[in-house]
Amino acid sequence: MLNDNFSLPIRVYYQDTDAGGVVYHSTYLNFMERARYEWLRALGFNVHALSEVHKILFMVRALEIEYLKPAVLDDLLQVSVAVTEVGGSRIALLQEITCNHVKLVNATVQVVCVGAETLKPARIPAPLREKIRKVA
Amino acid sequence: MLNDNFSLPIRVYYQDTDAGGVVYHSTYLNFMERARYEWLRALGFNVHALSEVHKILFMVRALEIEYLKPAVLDDLLQVSVAVTEVGGSRIALLQEITCNHVKLVNATVQVVCVGAETLKPARIPAPLREKIRKVA
Amino acid sequence: MLNDNFSLPIRVYYQDTDAGGVVYHSTYLNFMERARYEWLRALGFNVHALSEVHKILFMVRALEIEYLKPAVLDDLLQVSVAVTEVGGSRIALLQEITCNHVKLVNATVQVVCVGAETLKPARIPAPLREKIRKVA
Amino acid sequence: MLNDNFSLPIRVYYQDTDAGGVVYHSTYLNFMERARYEWLRALGFNVHALSEVHKILFMVRALEIEYLKPAVLDDLLQVSVAVTEVGGSRIALLQEITCNHVKLVNATVQVVCVGAETLKPARIPAPLREKIRKVA
Repeated sequence: MLNDNFSLPIRVYYQDTDAGGVVYHSTYLNFMERARYEWLRALGFNVHALSEVHKILFMVRALEIEYLKPAVLDDLLQVSVAVTEVGGSRIALLQEITCNHVKLVNATVQVVCVGAETLKPARIPAPLREKIRKVA
Repeated sequence: MLNDNFSLPIRVYYQDTDAGGVVYHSTYLNFMERARYEWLRALGFNVHALSEVHKILFMVRALEIEYLKPAVLDDLLQVSVAVTEVGGSRIALLQEITCNHVKLVNATVQVVCVGAETLKPARIPAPLREKIRKVA
Repeated sequence: MLNDNFSLPIRVYYQDTDAGGVVYHSTYLNFMERARYEWLRALGFNVHALSEVHKILFMVRALEIEYLKPAVLDDLLQVSVAVTEVGGSRIALLQEITCNHVKLVNATVQVVCVGAETLKPARIPAPLREKIRKVA
Repeated sequence: MLNDNFSLPIRVYYQDTDAGGVVYHSTYLNFMERARYEWLRALGFNVHALSEVHKILFMVRALEIEYLKPAVLDDLLQVSVAVTEVGGSRIALLQEITCNHVKLVNATVQVVCVGAETLKPARIPAPLREKIRKVA
């Protein structure tokens, strides 16, 4: 793991849960997207900078997720982002979701940088790659 | 009400419910969008025809909704679409959601035709307006 | 309007948008739920207190919403909550969504207090009603 | 693969897409849940039979997903379900999403049978296990 210190707090609302009484399993992917975008923003690259200046966006290419314990209504989760690998157009990330220091979800996410119009793979902008390596 | 006979069956899954054990209140709006698009398709105007040939799309401008009884997991709902008014760029619709002939939700929806690129109000394409008046 | 000063900031992510390039119309209802629950929490009544101590929850009974201007990716919205009326089991709220002081969405929401198990109307717990009247 | 012939058609609506113009990545998990529940229903085990007669429900325990090509608005997807392994309380499934015979998404999903109240692992009801083995 290259860096391990970005984490976004996310509160669980009714909209995130299902009739089983727990957070619906795909909702954790939404939580992880929010954390990745706040991590990028913290590095100085918000969505507009990426799409309008650099003409790129990031798409999820593959994802592995383990559900260890369910989150429930009103939980205050911490959703972390840590880079494990940076390639020409790909970034591999480890994301964990915890509540009161108990790990609930464990995921590895492969994102790929694509042209904002073409949706074809594109090189990660050099200043962003530098930034990622520096915080790593 | 000008016409009252289009209805789309929709099954309720876990993803549609919340920890209260019932369908989450905003999910009914998603169900109503599905019914409106299948109604347009049934009239011969699918999303591609609208956006690529006619260069328009429909946006919801205003909505009033009453939640009479909650839907629950595994319910098979009927979501209806009936036009109540057609203007130059606006359509007013009445949409109801029933389960076993019991009304659960009652809504009026104002949609506006907008340019697919500009998102500014645009005239409803004449062939679509004709079609709507005919089924009305 | 009885009180007008609670507001929750909410960032727009990809998950909140649709292929029209704007926030999907039902997503604003999700944003408004988050604001109502944070407003209740600010009054000292989080979801657990309501469901476990007072054995109640709030359901949306009716809603009117006007979409004035669309929100887009990365917008930082302010979602307000203001009580307009408090009855035995009902609360009427005015909720607005703004971005940079421009109003995007205007809504009135009727919520009803129901038994957490029965989902039948129940009286709003006296301490909560007092609190609402005090901030009003 | 034990069986390979259940498939559910699912239409893509605006609600399923994001501002990138494609289906939002977590939405495919929702599509896959719908297919699993229709597959269980086709085997004679709808959600009520499972929760009220057998007092169990299925939770996703782990998931691996590869996004090969994006689905877009109005696509008519086919979402398949095929069992690859059945244990005492776990089922491993292969799910694929195709459009016009082109594979868009590839996933393996581990679901676990849990008590409807306890959410603790429980044995898959014998008649369901038999049914799964028969179609396999």
